[in-house]
This record gives sequence, structure tokens and C-alpha cells, in this order.
Amino acid sequence: MAKVFNFSAGPAALPEEVLVQARYELLDWHGVGMSVMEMSHRSREFVSIIERVESDLRELLAIPDDYKILFLQGGATSQFSMIPQNLLGTKSGADYIYTGQWSKKAIAEAGKFCKVNVAASSEDKNFSYVPKRESWNLDPEAAYVHITSNETIGGIEYQETPDVGNVPLVADMSSHLLSRPVDVARYGLIYAGAQKNIGPAGLTILIIREGLIGQASSDIASIANYKTHADNKSMYNTPPTYAIYMAGLVLQWLKRRGGLVAMEKTNIAKAQLLYGCLDASGFYNSPVAVEDRSRMNVPFRLADESLDAEFLEQGRRQGLVQLKGHRSIGGMRASIYNAMPQEGVQALVEFMHEFERTHG
Amino acid sequence: MAKVFNFSAGPAALPEEVLVQARYELLDWHGVGMSVMEMSHRSREFVSIIERVESDLRELLAIPDDYKILFLQGGATSQFSMIPQNLLGTKSGADYIYTGQWSKKAIAEAGKFCKVNVAASSEDKNFSYVPKRESWNLDPEAAYVHITSNETIGGIEYQETPDVGNVPLVADMSSHLLSRPVDVARYGLIYAGAQKNIGPAGLTILIIREGLIGQASSDIASIANYKTHADNKSMYNTPPTYAIYMAGLVLQWLKRRGGLVAMEKTNIAKAQLLYGCLDASGFYNSPVAVEDRSRMNVPFRLADESLDAEFLEQGRRQGLVQLKGHRSIGGMRASIYNAMPQEGVQALVEFMHEFERTHG
Repeated sequence: MAKVFNFSAGPAALPEEVLVQARYELLDWHGVGMSVMEMSHRSREFVSIIERVESDLRELLAIPDDYKILFLQGGATSQFSMIPQNLLGTKSGADYIYTGQWSKKAIAEAGKFCKVNVAASSEDKNFSYVPKRESWNLDPEAAYVHITSNETIGGIEYQETPDVGNVPLVADMSSHLLSRPVDVARYGLIYAGAQKNIGPAGLTILIIREGLIGQASSDIASIANYKTHADNKSMYNTPPTYAIYMAGLVLQWLKRRGGLVAMEKTNIAKAQLLYGCLDASGFYNSPVAVEDRSRMNVPFRLADESLDAEFLEQGRRQGLVQLKGHRSIGGMRASIYNAMPQEGVQALVEFMHEFERTHG
Repeated sequence: MAKVFNFSAGPAALPEEVLVQARYELLDWHGVGMSVMEMSHRSREFVSIIERVESDLRELLAIPDDYKILFLQGGATSQFSMIPQNLLGTKSGADYIYTGQWSKKAIAEAGKFCKVNVAASSEDKNFSYVPKRESWNLDPEAAYVHITSNETIGGIEYQETPDVGNVPLVADMSSHLLSRPVDVARYGLIYAGAQKNIGPAGLTILIIREGLIGQASSDIASIANYKTHADNKSMYNTPPTYAIYMAGLVLQWLKRRGGLVAMEKTNIAKAQLLYGCLDASGFYNSPVAVEDRSRMNVPFRLADESLDAEFLEQGRRQGLVQLKGHRSIGGMRASIYNAMPQEGVQALVEFMHEFERTHG
């Protein structure tokens, strides 16, 4: 089959330029006679790769000097338990904002390690919006405030960083990190599984204010302690070297594309094109409040659900794949991360118009 | 540089055939129009890949039906804490055999979660041998007996499976799984980081007797619970999809090469060639007891340590790379996993003879 447009929510499409470069270097990276996959993580060559990834990430996100970057494994899911174990310190509880399936999982795991205060929730309207900041019932004694700043399944996205005072703000940015500029200094901890916007599955990126490291009890597993990884420059255990290398190629691609300001412009244009199509029609609809819609994950429904299977099948035949909604909510979902070109969204919208014309 | 012979202890050399196939399929796997890295882990395509990996692993190791295979992250290191958390059950302690740096780490982490009985140790002779089974002081009430069946740094290897009666035997096989046949039924749990003999870093393989799953407290993090992963067929969280795919290519290569019986023959021949060179000379020496020498990791020393740097540099110029010993013990180490061809060991031995002739 010719190259398709892949709307998967993750693992997700990677920029074709990046894949071409990876293919070119696969057996012999920069003339050293071996694949990146074959390099000792402590070799000069791999150390040069991981250092470049760190400096490019620092540059793209303008990460302040007093933040550490950690390259871990286990995805966002592993952080759901590590966060309370590492950040609770002398406090007994933490605030969580409940906005969908991923914050639900974060809350459930945190509940094993601390008192969870659900300070706001959008469950009343099926997680179709972000609760307004003024409605949050924050505990001033909380160890931290946790948000899921983009819900991959529900398709909601925080458009601004909420002000939570002096309590550290912790954000699961798995599905929109690198899609827009972020004021990192307003967060205590940002974490993201790589497999949406950053690289292949198997890599987790943490950006953490140094002062928050070192609060965990020494009783916990060393591998669950941020201090272990910070002290060992993410080489306490063997890091996922090839995934880190691939993320590095993605970061270089982002820099060539003009960085996050440029990416944000493109992502806004792509999102407007797709939401415009949904809103202009009674045939399709978006379940999400207009002001909270994700630029990355666009769930939508056909007014006539009996057409779902045919929609998916016709799309697939035209090279528009992975449009099925998450199994927990059904319908459709188009994930349009950085690597999805404008032409992919254009092709989807044209197909949707045509499908509506012939089935509406 | 031309293709080198890479003696890295891990991440380590992969079979060239495997890398060539990965390169061929990198942008478009089997004509589906996308890279394996871009596939949803729940897509039909990726599910077919992981199922094939599982069935090939089952076939190669003749894994009995009552064993589960789990594909996890975090390396062997993550298992050091997960094992006691999952296998302690109603018991209070576990037996550990202390044979080097990796069992030391396993013991230290286990000590956070259970009473560790070091039932035997080779510390008295700098971890240069495997304590004889009859010297082990096992606790019949132990939850399990843990061995590191190949010590990557010290270069010792269990040549036989020790009999530990009815207590489950747990083995860290990270650096020799798939190098020889194993009677899996004699183990309760076998685990291995992939980055030595199986595939790229970022994947951990567990082979566990079903009856041992489900003993963990529900208080522990869900991601640390074997039951979570078993119940979700290793898809509780997004698995390291590309590393799993690469491991699959390695397994297919092993099958083409005749499976583990054939690999063992080759590995014995390679090890004999290299140890023969060490033993025939007063210029080089092996610190390990003859009967316990690893076929995979061969640490050795030059009698005159002042020649170490020159040995490494001259070797490097001849394409023999990553021969430096682990930073904790110095000297040299040649890791000669499955993917190291006989010609690589031959080239090393010839270089060693020549170096001895010109420097001896």
C-alpha cells in the first residue's frame, strides 16, 4: 500500500523525513560501523546522542536551568504511582483535576499512596470540558496539583496553564507536549509518554524542578525514585536507547520546522480545518466544548451511528487509517499530532465531505 | 567505517540479517503503509507481531503451557524490586545466591521488601566461581530462590540448573537467555532484559509459572503487579512496540539458524576458541574458574596492565570495538552473544596473538 495517513492516537505517525533518516542510519550510525541499537549506552557515541536530545529539548521548550530532564521507561502509566511516591514529602494528600479517562487512571493509582482530593471534575457532562479554574476546590496543604493537560481519549485540552499558587503543578502532557510552547517554569513536573508526539513507545520524558527531587522515602524501589535517575543522568539502568535516538531525530525535525511557535501555528490551522468541517455539518458532531477542544485528538461522531463501519472502511480504502474511536467511548477519533501533515487533515476533510454528500 | 565486530556487553550487537530486514521494513511494514513504530499497539497488525513473538519464543524455549510470557519495560533492574513484591505471598523471606555485581543489586533491592537470606556467596574469591549446590544454606520456608544464572560483569555462568526442591527458582537470565536450551519447567520465573541476546534496550521478558501470579498485595502500584500485565496480555500500558518487533526478527533468525541447540553448539565453539587463546598464554589470563566460565561474557586481563590502553586502541583500529572491561573491575571483556559470528571471535583471537607477539 502507498504511504497512508495514520490518525492513530499512539503509538502514532512519525514524520516521514525522520523515518527516512532512521532507515539511512540503521546499520551504520555516522560511520561508526554499528547501529544505534547496538551501542553501549555508556559509549561515547550514545552519550553524544542523549546529550544532544537533552539540549534540543531544553532549547525547544526553553526549559530553565533548574529543571532536570529524565529519560525513563513505563509510560505515563508508571508515573501515576511514582508521582505520589516522589512528591508527597511531608504532606498527606494531593489535588487532582478529573477530566477524563487518563486523569481517572492517575487518580486511582495515586489513591494507593496518598489522600486524593478531586478538586474539580467534568464528570457531570461526560468529560466534555475543562472545569473553570475558579471552580476548583484546591487544598492549600496539598503536596501538588495534578492535571491531565490533554485528554487523549476525550479530546479536551487546557488552553492555558492554571494558576495554582505555590503548590507545585504536575501535568501529564503525554499527548500534546511539543505541540505548542509551554511556560515550563509554571510547572513543578511535566511528564509524557513519547509515543504520541515525541517518538516510539517505550520512552517517558520527565521535566522536573530540581527542588522537587529527593523527597521520596528510601524504602521505595530505587527504580521508582526520581533521585536515582537524576543522580545517574538517566543511566541507573539501561535506558531505551533507540527510542531516545528516534526522539532526537524528531526534535531535530521540529527545529528545522521552526520550533514550537511554528508547530503551534500549523496545529491550529489543522485543528480549525477539522473542527470547521465538524461544526459546519449536522452529519458529524464534536462532543467537546468549543473552548476546550484538543488540537491533537479530535473525537467525533456520525449522527447516524449505523454508518460508522462504512465510514471507517471507505476511509481505510482511501488511505485514512486508525480513525476508530477509543474502545471505551466509540465513534471516531482523528489524532492529528505534529507529524500529521496539513495534507492529511485536508484529505480527511475532503473524504468526510464526500461521505456526507453520498450518505447524508 | 566498515562494519565492526562489536563486543559490547549490552546494548549489544544484533545479527546483520536482522538489521537489514528492519531497514527494509522501516517505512512500510508488509505493505501496510506505515512503520511498526507508528502502529497502534492494539492494531491488528501489531497484535499479529506480538503474538508471533510469543509463539516463536514458546517454540524456541519449549515453554510449557502453564507459563505466561510477559513483555515489560524497565530491564532486569525493575524486576529486582518487583520479584519480592510479587512472589513473597505469605512468606517473609527469600534465598539469594550472591555471585557478583548483578546478584548484589538484586539482593540490595529485595532487602527493601523482604528478609533476604544469602544462602551462598562467592565473594571470598572475588566472584570468580559459582558456589557448589551442596554448599548452599537454603531456607525451606523461603518464598523463592534467586540466582543470577549469568553474571555479565564477572563472567560466570551456571552450567546446570540447580535443584532447589519445591521452592520456586527465580533466575535473572538477562545475558544468556536464548544462548542455550533451558528446561523452563524447573524455574518458577525467568527474566531478562532484552539488550544482550534478544533485541534492543527497553524490553524485558518474563517467563513465569501461572500459579505464581496473583500473590501481590493490591496496595502495590498496578504497574508493578504481574497480574496486571498477565490479565492484560502485556497491554496494560503501551508496550515497547518496536523493541518487541525487533526481538521478533531476532527470534525468526534464531529459528532459521536451527534454534537453541544449534546456537549452543556455535556458542561453545566460540567460547572454546577465546578461552583457549587466554589459557595458552601467560600474556593474557581469565580470572574465572574453568568450570563456571560464561560462554557469553569473557572478562580477561593482560598480565601487563600498562598495555591495556594500547591493546584497546589497536583493536579498535582493526574494527574490534567495545573490549574495555566494566568500569567496576577494569581489564578487558569480550561479550560474544548469539549475534557475534565465529569470524568475530576468530578476528579477536588473531589480533590477540599478534598483539602478544609484538608486545610479549
